[in-house]
Amino acid sequence: MTKKITVALDCMGGDRAPQIVIEGADRIAETNLSAHFLLFGDSKKITKILNHARYLKGRYTIIDTPDFISGDEKPSNAVRRGTNSSMRLAIDAVKDGRADVVVSAGNTGALMAIAKIVLRSLPSIDRPAMVTCIPNKKQTATVFLDMGANIECGAEVLFQFAVMGSAFARALLKIPNPTIGILNIGSEELKGHDAVKNAAAMLRNSDFSDQFYGYVEGDDLAKGIVDVVVTDGFTGNIALKTIEGTAKLISDVLKDGFTGSLWAKIGYVFASSSLSRAKKRIDPRLYNGAMLVGLNGVVVKSHGSADSVSFANAIKVAISLVENKINEKIIKEVKSAADSIRATTAAQNSEIQEQQ
Amino acid sequence: MTKKITVALDCMGGDRAPQIVIEGADRIAETNLSAHFLLFGDSKKITKILNHARYLKGRYTIIDTPDFISGDEKPSNAVRRGTNSSMRLAIDAVKDGRADVVVSAGNTGALMAIAKIVLRSLPSIDRPAMVTCIPNKKQTATVFLDMGANIECGAEVLFQFAVMGSAFARALLKIPNPTIGILNIGSEELKGHDAVKNAAAMLRNSDFSDQFYGYVEGDDLAKGIVDVVVTDGFTGNIALKTIEGTAKLISDVLKDGFTGSLWAKIGYVFASSSLSRAKKRIDPRLYNGAMLVGLNGVVVKSHGSADSVSFANAIKVAISLVENKINEKIIKEVKSAADSIRATTAAQNSEIQEQQ
Repeated sequence: MTKKITVALDCMGGDRAPQIVIEGADRIAETNLSAHFLLFGDSKKITKILNHARYLKGRYTIIDTPDFISGDEKPSNAVRRGTNSSMRLAIDAVKDGRADVVVSAGNTGALMAIAKIVLRSLPSIDRPAMVTCIPNKKQTATVFLDMGANIECGAEVLFQFAVMGSAFARALLKIPNPTIGILNIGSEELKGHDAVKNAAAMLRNSDFSDQFYGYVEGDDLAKGIVDVVVTDGFTGNIALKTIEGTAKLISDVLKDGFTGSLWAKIGYVFASSSLSRAKKRIDPRLYNGAMLVGLNGVVVKSHGSADSVSFANAIKVAISLVENKINEKIIKEVKSAADSIRATTAAQNSEIQEQQ
Repeated sequence: MTKKITVALDCMGGDRAPQIVIEGADRIAETNLSAHFLLFGDSKKITKILNHARYLKGRYTIIDTPDFISGDEKPSNAVRRGTNSSMRLAIDAVKDGRADVVVSAGNTGALMAIAKIVLRSLPSIDRPAMVTCIPNKKQTATVFLDMGANIECGAEVLFQFAVMGSAFARALLKIPNPTIGILNIGSEELKGHDAVKNAAAMLRNSDFSDQFYGYVEGDDLAKGIVDVVVTDGFTGNIALKTIEGTAKLISDVLKDGFTGSLWAKIGYVFASSSLSRAKKRIDPRLYNGAMLVGLNGVVVKSHGSADSVSFANAIKVAISLVENKINEKIIKEVKSAADSIRATTAAQNSEIQEQQ
């Protein structure tokens, strides 16, 4: 028998909340019979939408929470003011053990700030990070972090990101020994700033050395050269949004190409199934669901503009991470990685002493 | 009468040198009657290709330079060893005034290192940068810098990039008052690291305040929200390569979509003119040609994998920059911007003194 998994949902976060949250949960309820949902939000609004749900009956508990965090509320304000908000109470449920995981499409900064304060960092983790999957040529996905939680990152922090990204790839994508790359501006050892160079040296000296590929560049993300790509949150956020912007530009230009002349319109009719097949392969909705890794509790962030298909994917990611015990893996691997670096350093030191 | 413009070409740089260099020059010679070319490289190889050139007759001088900088040569080595290389001698020609501009598709790091040593920085410029144009939704182009010349940049340097980018947009794209954005991870004033925040404050306090839009994000690059986007070379290089990688992935996925079934193939026949029209709008070849701004001399870098259409575009950019006196504009604007900041600061200081 599959163990029951309880998913706390912030029903008030995101552009089309609570509608797409409930509809997304309903989609999951259809195929996943072990999931139960805690619905945090305005019970009147939620009940109205639940009337149209087909599979959620008997699978949810509503926790009436009229207060919510708005999309533009400052994180510090959300922490202070939002103690009775749907987001905060959903995270509290994970802390108290009433839920296994929380999913929210709400204010990213607020979610990170509240989750950090309520759940606290895992042992040996200095800074929690946001990790996600992006499409690549190899039809798998590239695990990518940090998406923007940490603007400036030292070598230790990047090293921990690598370990957490590896555990994420194992848990979600079922890759036994994920290869790891550090995002840089060239593949040569001399390139990049100190944090990047020192993180690379740490990975080479740890028991992750077999998994460590070296540096990768911006165009390697889409190539799928490695399974996990590590970078600071400033670069990561800009790279991810640049991918979004480029994809949008190309899609708009293609649409323009197919309007206008009669021939172009006929072309579209014939091409549409090929185009939609192509689109499906890199449909961003099927990559929705980012995890805030490094906390005592699993927190999944959905894109704010998610539709129900997209939000359902975020719930699927959340359930998969719980089932695959992501946090136990992270704790174990970060500890063993830290130990292996200490062991290597100790061995090098004793070698130096012997030579003297 | 149009003034004659002399273009020094490093004929030995790039993946398909000297072929595409000569062919690119030939394309320019066809329509631009005021351009003369100094061809630096292996004269035997060059002469062979010149036999097929249609428009270059009487429009070039060959400087026999068998030595060249290879694509993987370290910049420091290229500076030391390459004093008789085609790249070095082509840059020397700009320094000596024998050429108005140099164009090379060779080793980027070497080109920057040699150009900096030979030509030196313009007055008031701390660090030269690489600037380029990227396609956007508005059918113009977004001027983007730094592409990777400077990994870490303080506020002063980012400020100077903004001024140089603005001069570049005026000279090349003929935009009278280009709007300027600083690349960041959010549009709110509080976001980002110190360099970004301080550069924004400097722009707000200078006579560029009307042109300064504020922060832009990764997806705003393709939207064309502003005319000039400024960032450090680490982020800039990764953003540009991420654009390349994403475009390549989408194009590959589309190609795959149009192979397979008979219907897909028929779809392609009908769609191909629409697709190629779309492709033309964002053809990277028509955006080839990056300038190393901030030096006493105009240096243009072509993509290493350029074909002749692409290389011709880099030459076109070079000629346009010379015709529009890009460096005179930069010197004038940087000085006036620095003065305006000093004036603002002085006014603020005297105000503070008066209040005391």
